[in-house]
Amino acid sequence: MAEHTVIIENTLRKLLAEKKYSTLREILITMNPADIAAIFNEMEEERLPLLYRLLPKELAADTFVEMDQEAQELLIRGFSDSELKEVLDELFVDDAVDIIEEMPATVVRRILSQADPEMRQSINEILRYPESSAGSIMTTEYISLRPEMTVAEAITRIRRTGIDKETIYTCYVTKDRTLIGVVTVKDLLLCDDDDKRIQEVMIEKVISVNTHDDQEEVAQMFSKYNFMALPVVDTENRLVGIVTFDDAMDVMEEEATEDIEKMAAIIPSEKPYMSMTPFEIWKKRIPWLMLLMVSATFTGIIISHFEDALAALVILTAFIPMLMDTAGNSGSQASVTIIRGLSLNEIEFKDIVPIIWKELRVAVLCGVSLAAACFLKILLVDYLIMGNFAGNLNGNNPFLIIGVICITLAITILFAKVVGCSLPLFAKKLGFDPAVMASPFITTIVDALSLLVYFGVANLFLNLS
Amino acid sequence: MAEHTVIIENTLRKLLAEKKYSTLREILITMNPADIAAIFNEMEEERLPLLYRLLPKELAADTFVEMDQEAQELLIRGFSDSELKEVLDELFVDDAVDIIEEMPATVVRRILSQADPEMRQSINEILRYPESSAGSIMTTEYISLRPEMTVAEAITRIRRTGIDKETIYTCYVTKDRTLIGVVTVKDLLLCDDDDKRIQEVMIEKVISVNTHDDQEEVAQMFSKYNFMALPVVDTENRLVGIVTFDDAMDVMEEEATEDIEKMAAIIPSEKPYMSMTPFEIWKKRIPWLMLLMVSATFTGIIISHFEDALAALVILTAFIPMLMDTAGNSGSQASVTIIRGLSLNEIEFKDIVPIIWKELRVAVLCGVSLAAACFLKILLVDYLIMGNFAGNLNGNNPFLIIGVICITLAITILFAKVVGCSLPLFAKKLGFDPAVMASPFITTIVDALSLLVYFGVANLFLNLS
Repeated sequence: MAEHTVIIENTLRKLLAEKKYSTLREILITMNPADIAAIFNEMEEERLPLLYRLLPKELAADTFVEMDQEAQELLIRGFSDSELKEVLDELFVDDAVDIIEEMPATVVRRILSQADPEMRQSINEILRYPESSAGSIMTTEYISLRPEMTVAEAITRIRRTGIDKETIYTCYVTKDRTLIGVVTVKDLLLCDDDDKRIQEVMIEKVISVNTHDDQEEVAQMFSKYNFMALPVVDTENRLVGIVTFDDAMDVMEEEATEDIEKMAAIIPSEKPYMSMTPFEIWKKRIPWLMLLMVSATFTGIIISHFEDALAALVILTAFIPMLMDTAGNSGSQASVTIIRGLSLNEIEFKDIVPIIWKELRVAVLCGVSLAAACFLKILLVDYLIMGNFAGNLNGNNPFLIIGVICITLAITILFAKVVGCSLPLFAKKLGFDPAVMASPFITTIVDALSLLVYFGVANLFLNLS
Repeated sequence: MAEHTVIIENTLRKLLAEKKYSTLREILITMNPADIAAIFNEMEEERLPLLYRLLPKELAADTFVEMDQEAQELLIRGFSDSELKEVLDELFVDDAVDIIEEMPATVVRRILSQADPEMRQSINEILRYPESSAGSIMTTEYISLRPEMTVAEAITRIRRTGIDKETIYTCYVTKDRTLIGVVTVKDLLLCDDDDKRIQEVMIEKVISVNTHDDQEEVAQMFSKYNFMALPVVDTENRLVGIVTFDDAMDVMEEEATEDIEKMAAIIPSEKPYMSMTPFEIWKKRIPWLMLLMVSATFTGIIISHFEDALAALVILTAFIPMLMDTAGNSGSQASVTIIRGLSLNEIEFKDIVPIIWKELRVAVLCGVSLAAACFLKILLVDYLIMGNFAGNLNGNNPFLIIGVICITLAITILFAKVVGCSLPLFAKKLGFDPAVMASPFITTIVDALSLLVYFGVANLFLNLS
């Protein structure tokens, strides 16, 4: 919450304690619903219903939509049937669905019993669509026009029926419920001839989505085409609803958060962090931690296998973390870039050859520069300053040892970049979520690879017996 | 590019080869500008100007905006002065600015010389604002109304001047250039009395942004308030422009990509991956790789310091990667969650105490469950199946060694979660970007910590001499 909201919150608390309700009301009605909701979310349970009832009807409903689930549930439980009906009458269908989806069954039953029959039918229809589908985020409150209407008739219709619609700015032209065109209020208002037919001014190249399309695709169409609303049709091209840009924005934010969580080996959650219990957080984090920990068995096996070599030349151990981390970082840079490109539809599987070729060249640049820097750093810090190479080198030339480390570094970076860029592409191709192919997963694979390279190169150049 | 676009691209290529220009044109005019642009971006240099000239004027300009920078530059260089002027006349100011910002100086001079004086002035004004500020993404083409106008007069004004405006749906009411209210076309159309004054129907609680506000804040206001457009004012509350929702969507996507790149230790780039050269990619990736590699010196120093202990009990080495990776993964889960919460304004520095307390409890749950799983895994896989504990244990009880590994695991997870959740908060507090406190950075710190804990615990319980 922004600082100025905290100041207002304190003022409101004082006024509430002093029972200055009319002043309170005067302040609240100057505020935006989203800001009122932010304050109400922080209020104590017993104060909330009193404060909420100070709001005028329409502002109350707009605020209700913006509040978090706990506060909404609390209010609904305290509402009389007529109060609940009043709020429901002001809500858009898609907002009502959002609220219902998060409520326990008893509350849902009460809401449905108080909604008017038409709204109840729309709610039930939307609830039937699979989670995260276009159908589940659409609203059924749009303006439809007939192709033979004149511009003047259309404007009259908008003025008469617009009040309950989520947007009036994009109107949909249908014939026997089939979507045949769109026309915007801008087109209608700027049209110089009021007697023109809608079919003459409408745009026929309508871009629509199917009820079962994924919400992520829908959001991407918004960001590609800059639409204000997008029509949702069924398999027979009959118009069943619209998705508006504000819902698309929420989806964009939600999907980015989901991708980020998956990239950090967390199972995505719809609840905000601050309202999750430690146990709920644990449940989202432990599966990947467990899986990755067990996968690390491979690195253990590799090291055990080369135990004698390490015992013979203990200094090699000191560089294992540096080698593994650098390779891991190199790999996750590549994987995260590709994952994001896939999410934004900038990259596709068919680009795999140019991508690998590009990453190979990047890997050579990174490998050579890091190996050179590593050589200088070890020479300066570890050899000259720290004197770490003064111990038992088992008869090996210290420069040869440094060389082995740097060659290993360059080779593992090459592997890491190629593995990092190609795994997300294969995941996508095979129908898995590319986002899980990020840092933690890549690190586990790259760790094992870098150890194998390390011991392989060491065996080749050094005396390890 | 979607599959159906590839099919159309092949059709267009064939028609182009057969010189069937009128058929080509007929196909193109049924398509959406964004889709045409996607195909044009893939076209060979020599074919592009010919194809582009097939488009009708308005569609040509809309398509031009959606094309990528290389293709735009190519077309501009081929345009005659009058062709360039035609395109510019159709562009919105903010789109013109977006194009100019990416062009070399010679092209910019040509564009400015062909723009009409009013547009040139607006472009120069917007270019003056700092990069990523509200001023730099706004447009100056909005509809302003005077408070004493009637609803009917306002509608007439919109119909007369709307054609060149980026949005007509939200109109701004100003008095001596100061912003005093907003009114939507919906309010105007649904108003039952055409003679009502604008000052009676307008909303006075206007939420606006300042020209110098960061674009990220602007985007957050869109997602919070569900606005279609947001007015931009100067320090004296004079209206200078508006930002529309489509620009806010672009910013949201851009900022999410930037956060993701920073979290993966990449310096963000505005260019899409596929059009960057390997050298450009290298420049974005090498600084962090270099810094993190050098930081790994600490892990090397710690291991060197405990070299004798490792030599005495080589089996300890085998578990170093597992311990470091698990701690790193635990830490990055916490840091990434907090970074995303900060980005979405769900979390603030003042929440630091409840956050650390929550992460501590999560860490205990994760630590205990992972340590238990680790104990079983080592017992089963490493001890019984692989027989790795059959070698020289230096007189230590194998169960004690397994115990040391598991205790280390639990303690480092505790450290990792606390470091992971608090570093991004401190970064934010100190004015740094929290996103750089993600996996790679946390991993480097946590690696050193886990080694220290490992050797400390081992020293306490085991015979290492």
